Amino acid sequence: MALFSKPIKTLDDLFVHTLQDIYYAENQITKALPKMIGKVTNTQLKLAFELHLQETKNQIARLEKVFQMHGQPVKGVTCAAMDGIISEANEVMGDSAEAEVLDAAALMAAQAVEHYEITRYGTLIAFAKQLGRNDCASVLQETLDEEKATDRKLTEIAESRVNKLAA
Amino acid sequence: MALFSKPIKTLDDLFVHTLQDIYYAENQITKALPKMIGKVTNTQLKLAFELHLQETKNQIARLEKVFQMHGQPVKGVTCAAMDGIISEANEVMGDSAEAEVLDAAALMAAQAVEHYEITRYGTLIAFAKQLGRNDCASVLQETLDEEKATDRKLTEIAESRVNKLAA
Repeated sequence: MALFSKPIKTLDDLFVHTLQDIYYAENQITKALPKMIGKVTNTQLKLAFELHLQETKNQIARLEKVFQMHGQPVKGVTCAAMDGIISEANEVMGDSAEAEVLDAAALMAAQAVEHYEITRYGTLIAFAKQLGRNDCASVLQETLDEEKATDRKLTEIAESRVNKLAA
Repeated sequence: MALFSKPIKTLDDLFVHTLQDIYYAENQITKALPKMIGKVTNTQLKLAFELHLQETKNQIARLEKVFQMHGQPVKGVTCAAMDGIISEANEVMGDSAEAEVLDAAALMAAQAVEHYEITRYGTLIAFAKQLGRNDCASVLQETLDEEKATDRKLTEIAESRVNKLAA
């Protein structure tokens, strides 16, 4: 990443770099989610993942809008953290033999993804505000609200069904 | 990881695996934090990191207690997500020339670490309860409460000082 991305000297550079990081991450999620949807058995979980796949596509479109608003080309930079979260998810889900345990593993992975997104969007919104880009902050806030709602929904599913079934 | 860790067949296996994942992650944090403390300039941030280093050592001791309570050897498995978060932090902080921008980058990295911990401890507590290990859940809850408090403190610092200075 450092070899190809611009050196970070200002808060504006850091804002753009973080946009590129989450843009890459969201695109990786659109590739990972269909595989997870294919593996899970819990209906609630499958529906939640399907909805989130649609949301993620909208979130990518919003990021493209923010790049444009900020006069920057749409670009991703490798996000080692998201790559790590997804490779762990594949590993844990690959090992899980029983359907219910696999569902619990998928839920755990999805919540790690959501928390990564929540922290990055929170940071982006704070940076945007400090840079006087309240217009960009508003667009990013829509996504942050969706990510938090998704995390709450996953927690409800986790608490109500999947873990109980797997125990 | 998969080559050396036990196949995950039950929720108990997944619980133990996740304990091993976060045990590795916490140990990586104790190595990364002193370097971050050495680099940041904001006094509030430096103090928050120093406090969190102490907390992390206590959190590791709590994990060792949970391994023992659950009759499992104390063991870590490579956590690609935490390795990714830390390598990103090193990259972004290495690139940041101005002290205030570096502080903003350090804060961003620390919040990503906290959110990873929050999601994993949340999952561990849910699993422990489902497995009838409320005793383990209570110990893990102490750490989750600390992580959430640390994240709130970092958000306050982010909003009040660092980003404003860096803009």
